[in-house]
Amino acid sequence: MRTFECDYTEGAHPKILEALSETNMVQMSGYGFDPYTESAAEKIKAACHAPDAAVTFLVGGTQTNMIVLDLLLAPYEGVIAPKTGHINVHEAGAIECTGHKVLALPENDGVLDVDALEASLKTFYADATHEHMVRPGAVYLTHPTEYGTLYTKAQMERVRALCDRYEMKLYVDGARLGYALGCPENDLALSDLAALCDAFSIGGTKLGLLCGEAVVFPKEAPKMLLSQVKRHGGLLAKGRVLGVQFDAMFTDGLYEQIGREAIRHAKRIRRILLQKGYPLAWDSPTNQQFVILGDAETERLKTFVGFDLWGRTDDAHWIVRFTSSWSTTDADVDELEKTLPDRAALHE
Amino acid sequence: MRTFECDYTEGAHPKILEALSETNMVQMSGYGFDPYTESAAEKIKAACHAPDAAVTFLVGGTQTNMIVLDLLLAPYEGVIAPKTGHINVHEAGAIECTGHKVLALPENDGVLDVDALEASLKTFYADATHEHMVRPGAVYLTHPTEYGTLYTKAQMERVRALCDRYEMKLYVDGARLGYALGCPENDLALSDLAALCDAFSIGGTKLGLLCGEAVVFPKEAPKMLLSQVKRHGGLLAKGRVLGVQFDAMFTDGLYEQIGREAIRHAKRIRRILLQKGYPLAWDSPTNQQFVILGDAETERLKTFVGFDLWGRTDDAHWIVRFTSSWSTTDADVDELEKTLPDRAALHE
Amino acid sequence: MRTFECDYTEGAHPKILEALSETNMVQMSGYGFDPYTESAAEKIKAACHAPDAAVTFLVGGTQTNMIVLDLLLAPYEGVIAPKTGHINVHEAGAIECTGHKVLALPENDGVLDVDALEASLKTFYADATHEHMVRPGAVYLTHPTEYGTLYTKAQMERVRALCDRYEMKLYVDGARLGYALGCPENDLALSDLAALCDAFSIGGTKLGLLCGEAVVFPKEAPKMLLSQVKRHGGLLAKGRVLGVQFDAMFTDGLYEQIGREAIRHAKRIRRILLQKGYPLAWDSPTNQQFVILGDAETERLKTFVGFDLWGRTDDAHWIVRFTSSWSTTDADVDELEKTLPDRAALHE
Amino acid sequence: MRTFECDYTEGAHPKILEALSETNMVQMSGYGFDPYTESAAEKIKAACHAPDAAVTFLVGGTQTNMIVLDLLLAPYEGVIAPKTGHINVHEAGAIECTGHKVLALPENDGVLDVDALEASLKTFYADATHEHMVRPGAVYLTHPTEYGTLYTKAQMERVRALCDRYEMKLYVDGARLGYALGCPENDLALSDLAALCDAFSIGGTKLGLLCGEAVVFPKEAPKMLLSQVKRHGGLLAKGRVLGVQFDAMFTDGLYEQIGREAIRHAKRIRRILLQKGYPLAWDSPTNQQFVILGDAETERLKTFVGFDLWGRTDDAHWIVRFTSSWSTTDADVDELEKTLPDRAALHE
Repeated sequence: MRTFECDYTEGAHPKILEALSETNMVQMSGYGFDPYTESAAEKIKAACHAPDAAVTFLVGGTQTNMIVLDLLLAPYEGVIAPKTGHINVHEAGAIECTGHKVLALPENDGVLDVDALEASLKTFYADATHEHMVRPGAVYLTHPTEYGTLYTKAQMERVRALCDRYEMKLYVDGARLGYALGCPENDLALSDLAALCDAFSIGGTKLGLLCGEAVVFPKEAPKMLLSQVKRHGGLLAKGRVLGVQFDAMFTDGLYEQIGREAIRHAKRIRRILLQKGYPLAWDSPTNQQFVILGDAETERLKTFVGFDLWGRTDDAHWIVRFTSSWSTTDADVDELEKTLPDRAALHE
Repeated sequence: MRTFECDYTEGAHPKILEALSETNMVQMSGYGFDPYTESAAEKIKAACHAPDAAVTFLVGGTQTNMIVLDLLLAPYEGVIAPKTGHINVHEAGAIECTGHKVLALPENDGVLDVDALEASLKTFYADATHEHMVRPGAVYLTHPTEYGTLYTKAQMERVRALCDRYEMKLYVDGARLGYALGCPENDLALSDLAALCDAFSIGGTKLGLLCGEAVVFPKEAPKMLLSQVKRHGGLLAKGRVLGVQFDAMFTDGLYEQIGREAIRHAKRIRRILLQKGYPLAWDSPTNQQFVILGDAETERLKTFVGFDLWGRTDDAHWIVRFTSSWSTTDADVDELEKTLPDRAALHE
Repeated sequence: MRTFECDYTEGAHPKILEALSETNMVQMSGYGFDPYTESAAEKIKAACHAPDAAVTFLVGGTQTNMIVLDLLLAPYEGVIAPKTGHINVHEAGAIECTGHKVLALPENDGVLDVDALEASLKTFYADATHEHMVRPGAVYLTHPTEYGTLYTKAQMERVRALCDRYEMKLYVDGARLGYALGCPENDLALSDLAALCDAFSIGGTKLGLLCGEAVVFPKEAPKMLLSQVKRHGGLLAKGRVLGVQFDAMFTDGLYEQIGREAIRHAKRIRRILLQKGYPLAWDSPTNQQFVILGDAETERLKTFVGFDLWGRTDDAHWIVRFTSSWSTTDADVDELEKTLPDRAALHE
Repeated sequence: MRTFECDYTEGAHPKILEALSETNMVQMSGYGFDPYTESAAEKIKAACHAPDAAVTFLVGGTQTNMIVLDLLLAPYEGVIAPKTGHINVHEAGAIECTGHKVLALPENDGVLDVDALEASLKTFYADATHEHMVRPGAVYLTHPTEYGTLYTKAQMERVRALCDRYEMKLYVDGARLGYALGCPENDLALSDLAALCDAFSIGGTKLGLLCGEAVVFPKEAPKMLLSQVKRHGGLLAKGRVLGVQFDAMFTDGLYEQIGREAIRHAKRIRRILLQKGYPLAWDSPTNQQFVILGDAETERLKTFVGFDLWGRTDDAHWIVRFTSSWSTTDADVDELEKTLPDRAALHE
């Protein structure tokens, strides 16, 4: 039985694995000083229209958020995040482990409430004792969000303007960025992120790499980058493993194609869910679709298809998640269409 | 013009200064290994009915919270606090500086919402992925709270029961504890705190010491206490400075008397404020009284008496604070009664 | 031109890559909750004769040292290491980044001087003020060492006895452990390490994995292990990437075979170096061979073969390194034999 | 029986206590925003001929070192210190607690070996892999040193030149600085330190304050200083306690006078020790005098006078310390002269 529980249930996209195989016995220097890592960085800079950017490669998402934010923030600064932001909830305190407070603000279906952001900054600086509080040094957003939703370009520009006014950095966590870029509803291109952010990540793990996240610093390279990454345990001896994978990912439009295809599957999954009477928890345009089900329904549904128990709404209901990814095929969705019962049938 | 802005505008209670003077040229060992520090600890243990407690002395409030919580928590644990708790707002990120997340929960006028606490713990442990989140390892409360309000013994016992059920420590920040103990409305004695808490502080700075907070660990002394305090920059070479002061504070009922007297003055200040038409922001039984005033009123009032601009309620109103303390005299309050204009007069 | 500069110049051993390919499209749960990770852990426990051990998998060596030591040490404790130990020199301060001091002690060709260890512990505890100093909470050793040398079982047992006497943990960094185990001179089996250590790592990266280090806790699993790993940015979404690789590595004796073969090549490289007049810097029985050369010789030698500029002895001499690894073939060494000039010829 | 064990066995110099008493009931703002703190800062800037310096006040020595170095260093940088430096030995890992490595170098009787410093920096930057190591971001010196010895101005200038060449900050820990300044052998004035250092401390605790260290940043004030101090638990609510004391200390030459007098006593103590046959461990020109004694001699001497067991030289000998301070009187030294037996008599 196929599971749609998440977008990291398989290994790597065949082309990625192929690139690893083909380059396997080529001798290269370690720590990212190899031609594939260099080529990957060049391709990403080109894709971002950011020829002066610094690009580096890290292994995982939490590691990326923790290291990048520690690079962007002064030691005494905190980072503003939506209350539901990954760094505020699901990273086991990794940001605090580096000494920084996460300053949580209200959100709507995962999207930071920009009015609340503006109000909170005004209040902060109006308070004569604000030096006794944690200075907001950066804003952290995810795109798409943890709820599969998207920022508009207008929203992101407004956040950037606030960052400029209040001397903050802007960092966008793009663990699933490819699934935003593949979305017709999305109006934020890589080049927009490069123009608006101080740093953003381009997630590979959930887009078909064995592991790996690229980080783009469009404006200036952090000082002593290699040293800082190593200090946080993030430097790979075989840096090539990330370089080769990202190089293949940014060759011949693979990255864009993966995002587009997964979104095509997601839209179909969404239609199937709606047709069969499953109520969406909220409107997600990307590769994650969220449905609200009663506990008994949920139990019964498990015998038909794999999905994720994403969270509770109340004592009697689950939010469950169906996810498409780089590995989803038309056949997978056909099968879902065939095997998924009407919601009404779950009550029989 | 006298100011009532806060309870640390003067130096030390005369008896404290006297004790420092009298012992000044006695040679003693450093780092708290002196007879006065030992005597102070013994007197505090007696006052708490906690003969087996460990007692140590630190210089300031933020230092105390940061060190005690770092001692109580495992490195990967966070501390639950009311959203308005001092550690969550006004300590410049000192708790996060030691690597721990502050897990903020709802409160009412500064008092942690115990229902919300219970619900959040249930939700946390019901979530199968809770190891990806920060484990709540302790609950932090202030008594009295930042709003001058008090926990009831019943509330504190309920928090303790939750701490037992979910394997958490309970720490009470008593920076102004003496002003709770001096309050007729308070039903939490030192011995109750000793019975309920894993650690609590007895604030000296705001009760008439030059500086100093005592920390009581009623159940067991933390391992390597001196070393851990020093590691956080909290160990005084002349530990006697804290020992002598606390020894005098816990002699002949000085601590209790200071609390009682300040509360007597606070009640009178409150009556004066009400009689003259000043609306209380909320009901505080302790030494801090909070009033809501329009911006123009506030400006005019400054010409009559000193007070604290505590915070904003909205774009046009201040919450202002009047505080009594160990240094307040009947004459001070008489003068306030005489000079404070009727609120109506502020509009003329 | 082949380079012998280090043991991580290629990707993965063909059998490892094959295992990744074969399992690539199998759907598995994330974060290490997959059957391959479980199987790998079981095989490692069996290889260590440690059925009750906890085994976990991390991505890189510095990450492993930083996380494991942070798990073993109390926050206020430091770790003893040979002055030349990897954590003391080449990890960009990763250990200090977690708040722990590295307490450096004398060594001989990389092997901790156990007499100096014993003397320093005696001195420490004889000092009445030792609570003002950093308590040694663990001993860190590498096997083989950064100099390619080995501990004897007797030495390791003596260190263990000191750890018992002074209540310290023992952690062995086995980034190149396989090359020790493949050495006829080595008398420390995996089961000996399991009996003597509180934790040790079995390095995969330098033995033929794309990346990955296994960590064995023979005595007890650290509390909240997943959470602590994630907090340090060390948890992989696709935990399978490590599980599948280590499972293949511990199947049909691959790990042992890789070590044995690389050592066979190393011994031959050593003989070739000696026959051609190259003076060894010290006696290394493992896969790294160190030679002292003058600056001009070094420059000329670069035109014949690739090697590593390992360090300086003085202003005019280099220590250069020749390394064999899982990827070295008989043909590689044949070619070295053919192309390496007599040292005398470098002067012509 | 008087003890000469250390320079913090009494409370405060009478003039300091007097200043605290006189200002005790004056109402002042908290956190150092009071006229005494401002005045103290002005007087110190004048004494240092550094009108543009920033001056702040902290409570204790370890706290000062930890906070100042954390302000001066980038998060990934370490601090060079003599092996015997206070931060490397006797601060329970406070520097590492803020994430920075202490890079220990050789010294002579406590004075950093400047040749070794220069050599180590050359070696560091000559190493192509130095980004894998901890970047030296500052040099830490104590003046006088932990051995009572002094840097010459020429030595300090040479260190400064190396700091310039290798982009490092220079911080001098002046916990006992007053006793250097009172020394005829000393050629480093406050104005020299201001010219050479990025930061230095002027210790008060050991010079006759209840507690307190002033920190001078001659070149530029650190960003968000109050916030950073508070984040490390170093901000006093009653900042006046430090301001009033330092203001008195820098009034009418009290600070200079204290240093001068204590050194006069120290020189006499030294003569007495030599006359009575006690061998000096090394030559200290300042207020601490060190003597080597056998264990039996040491035991017997304890019955005559108080001193400090400073450390061991070998299994049978102690280094013992006699200290003068602001509290030492001529009568004290007269008594020492009278009661101290000839060393020979200790053997009878």
